[in-house]
Amino acid sequence: MTTDDYLADCRARLAFDLLANTWNAVAVWALRDGPRRPGELRERIGGISPKVLTETLRRLQGYGLVARREYAESPPRVEYELTDLGRTFLGPIETVGAWAFAHGDEVMAAQDRTDAQGLSA
Amino acid sequence: MTTDDYLADCRARLAFDLLANTWNAVAVWALRDGPRRPGELRERIGGISPKVLTETLRRLQGYGLVARREYAESPPRVEYELTDLGRTFLGPIETVGAWAFAHGDEVMAAQDRTDAQGLSA
Repeated sequence: MTTDDYLADCRARLAFDLLANTWNAVAVWALRDGPRRPGELRERIGGISPKVLTETLRRLQGYGLVARREYAESPPRVEYELTDLGRTFLGPIETVGAWAFAHGDEVMAAQDRTDAQGLSA
Repeated sequence: MTTDDYLADCRARLAFDLLANTWNAVAVWALRDGPRRPGELRERIGGISPKVLTETLRRLQGYGLVARREYAESPPRVEYELTDLGRTFLGPIETVGAWAFAHGDEVMAAQDRTDAQGLSA
C-alpha cells in the first residue's frame, strides 16, 4: 500500500478535514459522557460562542457524528449526543490530544528556533 | 480535566493544525522507513508537485518533525528524514488514517443524506 493509497485519498482527507477545525474535536470530546443540552456544552467547553457552538453541532450532524433530540416539554428541551459513528471518533481525538500534550512543547520550541534563525530548505 | 484544558489550549490546537494540512501527514508518513531524497518522496507520495513538496518539507522542518541532510557529493545529494520528534507523530497519523479507512464511507454517506435533505439545527 503506497502513502498515496493510505493517506491522500478522499476518505482519509475527510478525517483530517474533520480534525482541521478544532471545535469539531472539542465538541465531540465534550459529548463523550452522554447527551448534553446546548447550555451545558457551552459551559463544558468554555470560550465558545452560542453561534459557533450551533454551527459546530450542525456541521457534526452533517458528518453523522452527532444527533439532535428535541423533547416536547415546556419549555422544549433540546439535547445533542454522539451517534455510534461519533463515538468511534473519540479514539483518534484522544490519540492526537495525548500526542499534543506529550510533544506540543517540543514543536513550539522548534518553531521558536525557526523564527529566530530562518531556515534553508 | 475539562474539555477546554484538554483540547482547546494552544499545544493541542497545534497538533490539529499539523493534521489540518493533509500533505504534512502524507509527507511524514512517506518518511516512516528512513531518509529519502526529494525525487523518491515525490514518487512515493504521488500527486504532489515539486513546489508543494518543498513547502511541505520546509514547514515540517519548522515544526521540528523533519531534518534535512546535505552530502558534499557530486552532484550534491540532499535527503530528508524524520527527527525523533517526527517519529512520535507516526502513531497519531496511523490512528486517524485507520479511522478514516474504517468509517470514511459512513461519513460520506451522512454528508450525502444531509445534502439531499437539508438539516435543522
